[in-house]
Amino acid sequence: MKKGEKTRRSIVERSARVFNTRGYSGSSMNDLIRETGLEKGGIYNHFASKEEIALEAFDYAASLMQARFESALAGREGALDRLFTIIDVLGGLVEDPPVPGGCPVLNTAVESDDTHPALKERAQEAMTGWLRLIGSIVKEGIWDGELRADADPRETASVVIATLEGAIMMSRLCDDPAHMMRAVDHLKEYLKSLAPATERSVA
Amino acid sequence: MKKGEKTRRSIVERSARVFNTRGYSGSSMNDLIRETGLEKGGIYNHFASKEEIALEAFDYAASLMQARFESALAGREGALDRLFTIIDVLGGLVEDPPVPGGCPVLNTAVESDDTHPALKERAQEAMTGWLRLIGSIVKEGIWDGELRADADPRETASVVIATLEGAIMMSRLCDDPAHMMRAVDHLKEYLKSLAPATERSVA
Repeated sequence: MKKGEKTRRSIVERSARVFNTRGYSGSSMNDLIRETGLEKGGIYNHFASKEEIALEAFDYAASLMQARFESALAGREGALDRLFTIIDVLGGLVEDPPVPGGCPVLNTAVESDDTHPALKERAQEAMTGWLRLIGSIVKEGIWDGELRADADPRETASVVIATLEGAIMMSRLCDDPAHMMRAVDHLKEYLKSLAPATERSVA
Repeated sequence: MKKGEKTRRSIVERSARVFNTRGYSGSSMNDLIRETGLEKGGIYNHFASKEEIALEAFDYAASLMQARFESALAGREGALDRLFTIIDVLGGLVEDPPVPGGCPVLNTAVESDDTHPALKERAQEAMTGWLRLIGSIVKEGIWDGELRADADPRETASVVIATLEGAIMMSRLCDDPAHMMRAVDHLKEYLKSLAPATERSVA
């Protein structure tokens, strides 16, 4: 990697921490200068504006989430096992976020929905990817007979992500991981209920 | 109401809209001046700082939520009916928030958790109140036999709020009320599953 590219990457990585803890509006160029250890000119050599850095920092944080999903799912077979794996990855965001400050999609979604269309669009794309990932696993599970034919891929995807993202907010707000633990337990019971009843598969 | 009190109240009400859409960090005193139509001095006559206004604006928004719960629950008897009512109040925040910008507790929680301890404390208090409200209804339902003895009041409270708050975020992010509709349907099914099995109550 060339030196310029390395500097650019370091700006993105360090800025991602600032944006994910302080928010976009709460992060000033001075905060980014402090965190990156560069001069103002050193940052403006690589980026035209705070917004440009924020968009790349979001993509970087989202790519870390993507990498976690891929690594956790590697070698996992079966719809329930794969869905449980996704729940554990999102459930892990309370104690061990990929970037300090919690879930970058939640943070960016809540801040940008009324005010920053470009950031909102990035968070939307990440959310769409997560919804598709879960939906496609449910579809495969139905196809394989591991899940009931009347399971609803879109409902499952919405419910799994809503419950976990809401639980991240609650556990961080109340400084209490119990909310996330209850959400994870609840979702695993819910997903098990989407499997065909044992009687039916035996019959 | 005296004129000064009326002005103070109007500052709080109008500022609540600004904070709930733009966030605390994203709202400048100039934004508050524009929204209230007052001079800077007119605001500083009543409040010492932006933070002081934000704390009162949050309490005002939380009190509107409280009023919605109380009015919707009035005359409702039975644990399931009361829990469904709470779900509908929170589910209604996507299309009809009490203050523009969505759920004030979600917005304030996500923004303040790393940065604004005083705001975080207010959001925590509101969240604790909601958790207690749901927990106490579940306890009464167990006591009355309308819910199973092994229903867990704290789990139910965490799951209901997490699912709905996550769904508010998703529906606003994706401009799609379907996420909330699926969350509401899912939670009502979940709550029905906490009622004793029909066979058992008949036996």
